[in-house]
Amino acid sequence: MRIGFIGLGGMGGAMARNLLEAGHTVLVWNRSPEPVERLVAAGATAATIDEAFATGVVLSMLADDRAVTDRLLDPAVLDAAPHGALHVNMATVSTALADRALRAHTDRGLRYVAAPVFGRTEAAAAGNLVVVAAGATADIDSVRPLFDVLGRRTWIVGDQPSAANLTKIFGNYLIACSIEAMAEATTVIEAGGLDPVQFLELLTDGLFTGPIFAGYGAMIGSRSYEPVNFRLPLGFKDVQLALTSGLEHNVPLPFGGVLRDAFVEALAHGQAEQDWAAVTETARRRAGLA
Amino acid sequence: MRIGFIGLGGMGGAMARNLLEAGHTVLVWNRSPEPVERLVAAGATAATIDEAFATGVVLSMLADDRAVTDRLLDPAVLDAAPHGALHVNMATVSTALADRALRAHTDRGLRYVAAPVFGRTEAAAAGNLVVVAAGATADIDSVRPLFDVLGRRTWIVGDQPSAANLTKIFGNYLIACSIEAMAEATTVIEAGGLDPVQFLELLTDGLFTGPIFAGYGAMIGSRSYEPVNFRLPLGFKDVQLALTSGLEHNVPLPFGGVLRDAFVEALAHGQAEQDWAAVTETARRRAGLA
Amino acid sequence: MRIGFIGLGGMGGAMARNLLEAGHTVLVWNRSPEPVERLVAAGATAATIDEAFATGVVLSMLADDRAVTDRLLDPAVLDAAPHGALHVNMATVSTALADRALRAHTDRGLRYVAAPVFGRTEAAAAGNLVVVAAGATADIDSVRPLFDVLGRRTWIVGDQPSAANLTKIFGNYLIACSIEAMAEATTVIEAGGLDPVQFLELLTDGLFTGPIFAGYGAMIGSRSYEPVNFRLPLGFKDVQLALTSGLEHNVPLPFGGVLRDAFVEALAHGQAEQDWAAVTETARRRAGLA
Amino acid sequence: MRIGFIGLGGMGGAMARNLLEAGHTVLVWNRSPEPVERLVAAGATAATIDEAFATGVVLSMLADDRAVTDRLLDPAVLDAAPHGALHVNMATVSTALADRALRAHTDRGLRYVAAPVFGRTEAAAAGNLVVVAAGATADIDSVRPLFDVLGRRTWIVGDQPSAANLTKIFGNYLIACSIEAMAEATTVIEAGGLDPVQFLELLTDGLFTGPIFAGYGAMIGSRSYEPVNFRLPLGFKDVQLALTSGLEHNVPLPFGGVLRDAFVEALAHGQAEQDWAAVTETARRRAGLA
Repeated sequence: MRIGFIGLGGMGGAMARNLLEAGHTVLVWNRSPEPVERLVAAGATAATIDEAFATGVVLSMLADDRAVTDRLLDPAVLDAAPHGALHVNMATVSTALADRALRAHTDRGLRYVAAPVFGRTEAAAAGNLVVVAAGATADIDSVRPLFDVLGRRTWIVGDQPSAANLTKIFGNYLIACSIEAMAEATTVIEAGGLDPVQFLELLTDGLFTGPIFAGYGAMIGSRSYEPVNFRLPLGFKDVQLALTSGLEHNVPLPFGGVLRDAFVEALAHGQAEQDWAAVTETARRRAGLA
Repeated sequence: MRIGFIGLGGMGGAMARNLLEAGHTVLVWNRSPEPVERLVAAGATAATIDEAFATGVVLSMLADDRAVTDRLLDPAVLDAAPHGALHVNMATVSTALADRALRAHTDRGLRYVAAPVFGRTEAAAAGNLVVVAAGATADIDSVRPLFDVLGRRTWIVGDQPSAANLTKIFGNYLIACSIEAMAEATTVIEAGGLDPVQFLELLTDGLFTGPIFAGYGAMIGSRSYEPVNFRLPLGFKDVQLALTSGLEHNVPLPFGGVLRDAFVEALAHGQAEQDWAAVTETARRRAGLA
Repeated sequence: MRIGFIGLGGMGGAMARNLLEAGHTVLVWNRSPEPVERLVAAGATAATIDEAFATGVVLSMLADDRAVTDRLLDPAVLDAAPHGALHVNMATVSTALADRALRAHTDRGLRYVAAPVFGRTEAAAAGNLVVVAAGATADIDSVRPLFDVLGRRTWIVGDQPSAANLTKIFGNYLIACSIEAMAEATTVIEAGGLDPVQFLELLTDGLFTGPIFAGYGAMIGSRSYEPVNFRLPLGFKDVQLALTSGLEHNVPLPFGGVLRDAFVEALAHGQAEQDWAAVTETARRRAGLA
Repeated sequence: MRIGFIGLGGMGGAMARNLLEAGHTVLVWNRSPEPVERLVAAGATAATIDEAFATGVVLSMLADDRAVTDRLLDPAVLDAAPHGALHVNMATVSTALADRALRAHTDRGLRYVAAPVFGRTEAAAAGNLVVVAAGATADIDSVRPLFDVLGRRTWIVGDQPSAANLTKIFGNYLIACSIEAMAEATTVIEAGGLDPVQFLELLTDGLFTGPIFAGYGAMIGSRSYEPVNFRLPLGFKDVQLALTSGLEHNVPLPFGGVLRDAFVEALAHGQAEQDWAAVTETARRRAGLA
């Protein structure tokens, strides 16, 4: 297929590269030039956002609601897009943004699918993401070959795009809760004179298998939060998206309130450049172990 | 080996049966008679607690601190036990109880090992438990053949018995946190018009694999909390053990405070006979979904 | 003085009336006509917002950030205001709104003072409010005679208008915390078979004197939350303003997280038309007392 | 009257002295000798606990449940007391202790009244306490003259002694909540560049009058927590009594969970010798202001 790809950060860059390698023609745009140059070297074509939309199928992977609003919901951009063009937004954004984007597209005869993904940059590079898609069935079907390149599995969770975003937000909520739970538990384990590394090995050996507990458990047990896969402020953004969704549906989220404070405290102690697993240090500081 | 086994509830009964089937001679005691009769039918010998101790090796699986204190830390019982007898306490009890039991045994020339287990009754029946042992190495070695019958793996976490209890308590803490996290997330998913069953299938397919998320996720997604594997008040007991351990080591446990309130609220609404996964209903009630 | 007054709700209407009775000439505007008619009957002059600004001194008392933004930060309104006109915003709004409003005014040669008030409608009617003002000293001095009519005391808390809003937001935070604390305490008192009314009388007799504990205590003890002085969603708005301010300054607010969930739960149970003291019912429902 | 007085700490010493000065004959006992000597110098008679009980009326003011259990619920002590002797326990103890004490006394034909007090040492010295009494009416009436010496007002809250303890525990709960609320609010105020002292002056001037907000507010605003009136671990003990009472009556206490963690964190940072108002430092540390 001939497609556009907007947003070449750690995730987006790896995804665009896989699409290229699978034989697709990819017109790429990014705010800063370096990622574009790397993709062009791999066979992509540098393009404007308008040119990307002109292909008729655009995948986007921007940082947050604001970036999507500024770049892709700009009336000038959408007015210029060809009738029937399909925009597949793969970023983790709010459900409110999804609703707003859907309206902005359908009002102009454009199509909009939300397809956020689970998986970190290694999974993106390996084409091993999990894609969570929502939108019109025909629209999703038309880009299934692309999803099959990017991920190992695609889930369709509804015909309203926001359904995919709600799913993604609360998947991340489970991850954040798992990190905090491990942080609290290992802090007591350490304060009690036991070995946090063995503690988490024991628990991830049979009970809590899978990449979340294994991957974050390894970081938390050893307190080495490198490489930074997902910066703490981005994790905090997702906790706030969850709290906002809870509020929209009148659902109290007491764990979310705890997470909020743990992340705020991490930011107050200068941890903005660290991986979100380093929110563990909040628990340790509170116990006087810092 | 010729051993005693004290406490034949759902877990203890299955464990004693496996030891019998592996060819060991097992003298069994239980507060109520029916479980004793069932084990005797399977080849065990009914015994008093004193007779069980007289074998020189006693495994116990009683309900809580109080039961252990009343039955097995009774000075009359310990004074009557043969010098050098080994007591392996496999129940989930407090670290304070472990310390007290260790003293009561060593003061009389008896030996004490803590070896709580992870796994529910099916795992106990299948000899598929995870044993977490702590105590003197020679003592643990002497009962390794028994642990190998009961579980698929034995972890040794220290030479102080309480280390095994702290590990078990905070393993259960991670489970309780996982239940609450799934409860909160699925409540928003449901309130948002999506399907909690699909939501949890999606997340346990690749990210949160393993029996905890899969098993409890299936209960929570479908809101069918049968069969009752672990009664809610027992789960609450373990949350309180975690909070107490946090207090002993000056570690704040904000998730623990949330769990405490969720369990109290479940008990206030008559859920004492349900599985602890049913604490999910607290989240739903709060959101007006009950 | 000849002034404009924008926003004639329960608070604003009583305040404008007092200014009239003190001999000032007041041009009033309100979204709905009835409050205007009542004030005109009391001697006020009906006006447009532009006419109100044309007096050179406008006091405003609108519901929230959005109302202020739509009505008073509209560029058309500010561009039409006479050079040097002073806008005194007495509503409880966010500090971000205060900063934005200050810029919008100073950019056009207008002056802006924030002067939110403590006190309910009876205090407003009695001229017994507490005014918390921040802004340029000369600007505040110029409207001191008006503040003296409206309140029993004026505090000046800084030269940046947002300082007054931060002070007001966290004054309300203390009130919300006091309500929740009384709610939790009286729920145990009631569950324990004692009398919540006597309990709160005892505590407000000598330890917790003053209108907050006495006034809300009387409502909470008797569970009669009428008349509705401050609607629950408005109280919730202020809790959210506090949480947002905490976030801006990297301050965790664990009580704020609890309040957030208590208010969300109240809204999930249909309490949007009740006084915010009725958040007490959340505590009672959780304990199975509803 | 001729009475015994057990426990001459900061509170008990001042109370016994007032009783002496009012003309009563007071036989005093204390664990350490110095306070006894001071009271004897003021006219009291040194006595054993048995001699104190032999007067027929004993007031006690010991530190906690354990001290009461060890000293006054000792079967040897109670068996030796004259039939019909009245014990008035004025300490802040658990409701469970009250129930146990009542049984231990009535089983032996002794009488038991709970009469904890509100007020700090200055109030004790000034005879300005608030007495909260519960027990048989005739028993309370018989010591009313003593209460009138010790306090400015006596409240009778029930005929079960534990009712007085529950009332006292949740009075202290309101105080602890007020401290934490002021701690969180002043931390944002400080982080926002405003003056916490002025902030609390403003709020305690008209809205939050009374000794709790004024007294603790002065400590918190200025961050000078001297003199130590009520040590942080004692305050923590009372928070735990509240949580335990909530648990007994199935009442979730989310503010209590927050308090628990704030106090644990203060203890983890070496604040055990400070006044409980210094739990404020927990909020500041979390915000990076320490």
